[in-house]
Amino acid sequence: MTASSALHTDRYELTMLDAALRDGTAQRRCVFEVFGRRLPGARRFGVVAGTGRLLTLLRDFRFGDDELRFLRDEKIVDADTLDYLAGYRFTGNLTGYREGELYFPGSPILTVEGTFAEAVVLETLVLSVLNHDSAIASAAARMSLAAGDRPLAEMGSRRAGEDSAIAAARAAYIAGFSATSNLAAGRRWGIPTMGTAAHAWTLLHDSEEDAFRSQIEALGTDTTLLVDTFDIRTGVETAVRVAGTGLGGVRIDSGDLPTVAADVRAQLDSLGATGTRITVTSDLDEFAIAALAASPVDSYGVGTSVVTGSGSPTAGMVFKLVARQDDAGAWIGVAKASTDKASRGGRKAAFRTREDGVATSELVVVSDGYEELDDAAAHPDARALQVPLVVRGDIDAAAEGPAGVAAARAHHLRVREELPVRALALSRSDPALPTVFTEAAEVAGQV
Amino acid sequence: MTASSALHTDRYELTMLDAALRDGTAQRRCVFEVFGRRLPGARRFGVVAGTGRLLTLLRDFRFGDDELRFLRDEKIVDADTLDYLAGYRFTGNLTGYREGELYFPGSPILTVEGTFAEAVVLETLVLSVLNHDSAIASAAARMSLAAGDRPLAEMGSRRAGEDSAIAAARAAYIAGFSATSNLAAGRRWGIPTMGTAAHAWTLLHDSEEDAFRSQIEALGTDTTLLVDTFDIRTGVETAVRVAGTGLGGVRIDSGDLPTVAADVRAQLDSLGATGTRITVTSDLDEFAIAALAASPVDSYGVGTSVVTGSGSPTAGMVFKLVARQDDAGAWIGVAKASTDKASRGGRKAAFRTREDGVATSELVVVSDGYEELDDAAAHPDARALQVPLVVRGDIDAAAEGPAGVAAARAHHLRVREELPVRALALSRSDPALPTVFTEAAEVAGQV
Repeated sequence: MTASSALHTDRYELTMLDAALRDGTAQRRCVFEVFGRRLPGARRFGVVAGTGRLLTLLRDFRFGDDELRFLRDEKIVDADTLDYLAGYRFTGNLTGYREGELYFPGSPILTVEGTFAEAVVLETLVLSVLNHDSAIASAAARMSLAAGDRPLAEMGSRRAGEDSAIAAARAAYIAGFSATSNLAAGRRWGIPTMGTAAHAWTLLHDSEEDAFRSQIEALGTDTTLLVDTFDIRTGVETAVRVAGTGLGGVRIDSGDLPTVAADVRAQLDSLGATGTRITVTSDLDEFAIAALAASPVDSYGVGTSVVTGSGSPTAGMVFKLVARQDDAGAWIGVAKASTDKASRGGRKAAFRTREDGVATSELVVVSDGYEELDDAAAHPDARALQVPLVVRGDIDAAAEGPAGVAAARAHHLRVREELPVRALALSRSDPALPTVFTEAAEVAGQV
Repeated sequence: MTASSALHTDRYELTMLDAALRDGTAQRRCVFEVFGRRLPGARRFGVVAGTGRLLTLLRDFRFGDDELRFLRDEKIVDADTLDYLAGYRFTGNLTGYREGELYFPGSPILTVEGTFAEAVVLETLVLSVLNHDSAIASAAARMSLAAGDRPLAEMGSRRAGEDSAIAAARAAYIAGFSATSNLAAGRRWGIPTMGTAAHAWTLLHDSEEDAFRSQIEALGTDTTLLVDTFDIRTGVETAVRVAGTGLGGVRIDSGDLPTVAADVRAQLDSLGATGTRITVTSDLDEFAIAALAASPVDSYGVGTSVVTGSGSPTAGMVFKLVARQDDAGAWIGVAKASTDKASRGGRKAAFRTREDGVATSELVVVSDGYEELDDAAAHPDARALQVPLVVRGDIDAAAEGPAGVAAARAHHLRVREELPVRALALSRSDPALPTVFTEAAEVAGQV
């Protein structure tokens, strides 16, 4: 299970490496930055996810015999570059937002520092992971906020590529979901799994009653019965008749949910099943969940909308060279000037300023280092957003695996408490916080 | 690289299996069908993709020690079910549309026949693969049609999960793209790879001229230079000065492309570089490509829009039980009756009827078998759409691997020639062909 991740790479990264090894620029130290020019879907905040996965994939970013043979046979790089890749280890630094952290346009989500050679080849992998997972988490956080205290399960694996489905379950959990249907996500990331039966279960049997009876025998009275295969009213009646008033729950997967949920609640209560929970699962998104806030629903299952980022399937982050050394070792901030895609040169330090515990801005200091940041110091309640993830090639193992997921979820749930109330609205709008760029005075003109 | 695919599975499939093994229904023979209730994005046709990947994943659908330990430790199934899963092999039949085939609402894209036990556990994996890959292929085919004879490269890996990116490159290639930037897709599926340099290449160097000179030394005059890092006009002038009029190509990644392409073409011609090609790559989708049809563009690179299905990131196909045997071995067509998600029971055979070589309908015969189909026989030019993919557990190896991809691409390019002209429009509309359901007379009332 330690397949190489090294070919999750766009060809141009290796052709640039090839040319840079020839002309000597490969060893120039560089700073690349990952940021989003805007938030996906004109939302009010984004959520960083994927960091822990990325760190593990970075461990496996090795060019073995199979990878090298392909690059040689296809004449993608020359012999010197093959030699370089055979010994490739990332020995630089990754500094970034904690997984689960909120982000805004221009937030320096990840900073990659190393030689041009070792850093440029990571572009595609870094962006694939962060763009996908952050898109899911950014959508999921809104659903989680809309659901309030009601449990929310992710069950969209069938509407996502089979591996992305696992990553989506992970991102949704970090952003506040409480469980997933995906067993691989349960095993890999320690996420609670859920699920009982599909319509096929009822159709397999000679009657709905047979199906319910069998499910209860196997899973106990506390299970959840899917009651809408034929007629919902009959389904509920049969469910309670078979299970008794101690039935754990019923699931509704079709119809106009506010109406149906109210009818089912009334029917359950009239049958004495006052403790039986109602789960709804039909094409929900954050807006449908919000519309059900006043309905007698006990939990939600969300599929398509969460795994596809609810209209924004990618976070649209980019990976840009923002600073490099020249031949004399001096740092130079660099940026492209294209009219519609300009970027901002220089290394950045980021802080969330707060007043009375409520976030007020994303403060980004263009600076050579992370000390002497007068602007941040002027905000006594500012919180530094970046942490070291990889130091001289040494990966922070605490951010990986199930422990990393649990930490990211806890961090997310904590920091979203800082959001101002206007950030919680679901409508399209400007970001909830302004991103304020300042130059650290004492290093102005440098990076 | 033969990791098990068995946990790419929603928990409820295993809880249903568990209960079915207890009550004896696990051994009932069943027919499940994969179909889409509608086409993604109100398009005029869909493209089936993922079949070859699915067959390989089916080979690897095995419950090994790691998978079984997880299921036991988490108490997801009981000991008898663990025993069943330890010996799991799919021994049934998969019959389906060829990869690359077109589909319409209700097309029986894949039919899975086997015992309930062996078939139900495949639901999530089957849908994950077909929904993702078909969404990409359905979007990609429109881009390919809009591009006409101009080459079209997929370069969206950074905007998709790292594994889905490989599948997306594959699906786009099947639907008419000519190359990908993704090296893993090149290695795994034999797709041509492309790419030369990013903006970071120019920014790494002390001047744009240095960067161009170095790239040409490494890659030759026939390379493509990215000319929009600073000022495009200066970039083009520098490119031709450095490379000479034999420069292979320039790439433009920003700006209003019709205007910029015309200006760059005029400039190149005035400099004598009349053979230098122009590649454009900035946020293209099928509409932007169509809008550039009259512009002097030689090739396109498409990223985000193709890997995210251009607004429809999942094909929305479902996996439904449509027929099963009863205890006496008689077949019964089954379907759920939910008002908004009703399905149609019975096994289906599918044909594309044609007149003068132009497709006229998707004919779906609800039938027990694939012979004696009077309705199809009434259309002498009808083409049978289903082929055996797995026969009694034996997988059609020809549909797998790079050879399967090449065959799927050839099939797609051939069958889309049958489409009526109205199918080629990009606007939202009804499907280009009606789906006509009929019951095979001699088997009416049966499945």
